[in-house]
Amino acid sequence: MRPQDVIRKKRDGAQLSAEDIRFFIDGVTQGTIADYQISALLMAIFLNGMSDAEQEVLTDAMLHSGNTLDFSAIDKPKADKHSTGGVGDKTSLLIAPMVAACGICVPMISGRGLGHTGGTLDKLESIPGYRVNLSAEEFERVLKTVGYAMSGQTAELAPADKKMYALRDATATVEAIPLIVASIISKKGAAGLDAMVIDVKVGSGAFMVAEDRARALAHALVKTGNACGIRTRALLTDMNQPLGQAVGNSLEVKECIELLRGEVADGARPVLDLSLELSAHMLVLAQLDDSLAAARARLQDILSSGQALECFRQNVAAQGGDARVCDDPAKFLPLVAQTFKVESPRSGFVTKVNTAEIGHAIAAIGGGRVRIDDAIDPVVGFIAELKIGDRVSAGVALGTVYCGDEDKARAAAQRIQSAYEIDDQPPRELPPLMREVINE
Amino acid sequence: MRPQDVIRKKRDGAQLSAEDIRFFIDGVTQGTIADYQISALLMAIFLNGMSDAEQEVLTDAMLHSGNTLDFSAIDKPKADKHSTGGVGDKTSLLIAPMVAACGICVPMISGRGLGHTGGTLDKLESIPGYRVNLSAEEFERVLKTVGYAMSGQTAELAPADKKMYALRDATATVEAIPLIVASIISKKGAAGLDAMVIDVKVGSGAFMVAEDRARALAHALVKTGNACGIRTRALLTDMNQPLGQAVGNSLEVKECIELLRGEVADGARPVLDLSLELSAHMLVLAQLDDSLAAARARLQDILSSGQALECFRQNVAAQGGDARVCDDPAKFLPLVAQTFKVESPRSGFVTKVNTAEIGHAIAAIGGGRVRIDDAIDPVVGFIAELKIGDRVSAGVALGTVYCGDEDKARAAAQRIQSAYEIDDQPPRELPPLMREVINE
Repeated sequence: MRPQDVIRKKRDGAQLSAEDIRFFIDGVTQGTIADYQISALLMAIFLNGMSDAEQEVLTDAMLHSGNTLDFSAIDKPKADKHSTGGVGDKTSLLIAPMVAACGICVPMISGRGLGHTGGTLDKLESIPGYRVNLSAEEFERVLKTVGYAMSGQTAELAPADKKMYALRDATATVEAIPLIVASIISKKGAAGLDAMVIDVKVGSGAFMVAEDRARALAHALVKTGNACGIRTRALLTDMNQPLGQAVGNSLEVKECIELLRGEVADGARPVLDLSLELSAHMLVLAQLDDSLAAARARLQDILSSGQALECFRQNVAAQGGDARVCDDPAKFLPLVAQTFKVESPRSGFVTKVNTAEIGHAIAAIGGGRVRIDDAIDPVVGFIAELKIGDRVSAGVALGTVYCGDEDKARAAAQRIQSAYEIDDQPPRELPPLMREVINE
Repeated sequence: MRPQDVIRKKRDGAQLSAEDIRFFIDGVTQGTIADYQISALLMAIFLNGMSDAEQEVLTDAMLHSGNTLDFSAIDKPKADKHSTGGVGDKTSLLIAPMVAACGICVPMISGRGLGHTGGTLDKLESIPGYRVNLSAEEFERVLKTVGYAMSGQTAELAPADKKMYALRDATATVEAIPLIVASIISKKGAAGLDAMVIDVKVGSGAFMVAEDRARALAHALVKTGNACGIRTRALLTDMNQPLGQAVGNSLEVKECIELLRGEVADGARPVLDLSLELSAHMLVLAQLDDSLAAARARLQDILSSGQALECFRQNVAAQGGDARVCDDPAKFLPLVAQTFKVESPRSGFVTKVNTAEIGHAIAAIGGGRVRIDDAIDPVVGFIAELKIGDRVSAGVALGTVYCGDEDKARAAAQRIQSAYEIDDQPPRELPPLMREVINE
């Protein structure tokens, strides 16, 4: 068998056999198949798709392309949450401590931000001293003592995915559902999970703007996750405006700590609501609770009793961070005094937000990455004051840009201002935060 | 503009602008676009096709990606022939001297064999001493003194094509019509032609097995060639059996020299007929003759007077070869005494030949290349004794394998034997040698 034989088969719309797929993924992992052959297959998959059977084998082959983590020594159900990414999407920072405090083991392998979307690892690194590149031993130790651990994908974990993921960005093959599914599930599966909830974002700040595409992705994720032995469920949730108020690394961590402390600003409430709901599904899938109602009650208790905050504090300390951020986030997180108001250009109602544009505007001034090797300035960000449906007067703040460089701040503010649509009439309907639960 | 933006556009089925295409081909030439990005675009073009306008710009951009040859100092019309490749297809060796002897300048940039098809350069190299890698100065000198010259594509000529051609084989993107057309016309166009005849092969030994695909390719070649300023015509011709009798490098040169000498074996006649017809079209396109009838008469005269043989002899001498091959090919060409008969397994009529399989069988024992860097043994080959429609008795020779290694010869003979279909009834019709002339 030669790589081009497999490429030709997919190119011609035929079904790849398990042998074809395993041969190819082995070659990707071993480095015996050239990058230009991998990218040709990626494009053929993009354009010709994959059957459920192909999807399952592809994911399984990528999952087993390197080491898999084994936490059988930890006698708890293992569960995780994954989000397809958005703007201001910081729920991992709340979910991990809440669910871990309920007695579930949460081995969370997270990513970095790129383009308009942020990344959990970048956010955590705004906590002074916090280390996200744990060795396998450190990861397991934190997991055992704290209940959850946060780390990046190591070279040993799903290396075929690492290789293919890097090529996809440069070859315009990112948005293919079979490739997205294989990438997500292979990484999560290699971390030895029993259960997984996937937050599939829909809307102007999501990877999948259209609801039907997002739904198709959610079904494929659930089907493939289950086929790979992980009890999997997906929620379609809204990304037509930033989730909560904060966009930008340090600001997002601050928002999360405040929520864990019980300091719930109105604008941040959707972050808490969504985190609780995703967590409740995790508890049910992990078979800790029989019903969502029981899980929700348990989570409310864990949160209001301060156990979730305590779990977060232990994780920060265990991963080398300054745990005082939990007591006074405004003091111990890196923040910037210089702010720049984004004014509403007219009076009316917020009817629409180009959410990706807000993400890009903040990334462009250092709050995220335009290119994969950009450095991040943790203090840079945006606090949104208004949501879709809110009434606003001309000159009133839509929000505030945080940035030490005034020229950059002004540039971002201009982009953000034009990302808001203000009309005379209120929108006919408000986008629901949670749209659909997908079980199969 | 980034390479992935161009890839995305073609991936989504949109029309690439001239600017997109020129940006990409410039990047291929300069080496600023990675191989894996080139192959992703090749696959997107394979699956989504190209419009006439895109095809024309792509070809023109590749044509001008390096130096172009300028033979304006030679005051003759410049014409060439190109074949899409087949088994036993050796017409270039006859056409070049015949047409050059008529007073046309024939700057023939040729290729190597790969897979089941042979290559003109490999054939010529079986003449002792013959050099096919001429410098630009040598090429022009031979062209001036002899009337035709044969050489490989240099690094300076259409370098973007060179790069893309190498990637296509490894990424299963060879058979895409827009890529074939751009590759052929860019190379030929860079050689500064006025006129070009393209022999598009159809059938079991052709690159395009199906007649409709071959016809579509022929139309695209003619359209694009004319758009690039070369008067272009295509002939659809038969490749359902080896052309003539000889398959293999030295044997094919021997067949050609015999035909130039007027020694026309029955089985070799189709080579001569097709070469004369393609040559006649070249003379008309080069505006030397007003009609095919006049051109045919002129060519017959050039051939029977020995002027074509004389021109061939001068070319061999000018390119460093031993010109005595023209006087006694059996003595001065490398041939092998060991032969192996391919017997007909039964009595009946030859109804069908798997021609590509014959090519592969000979390539596998050294008569061609399975891989691009294989060495060729010039003496290895096959002489076909029968054609479709011929009656045969069990045990009689279908043909003879030439090879110094008996085990290899036996293996090839077995494959070739099974490539012939022998039935009780003769075939309903014989495949016509020339099927169609395509002018637009």
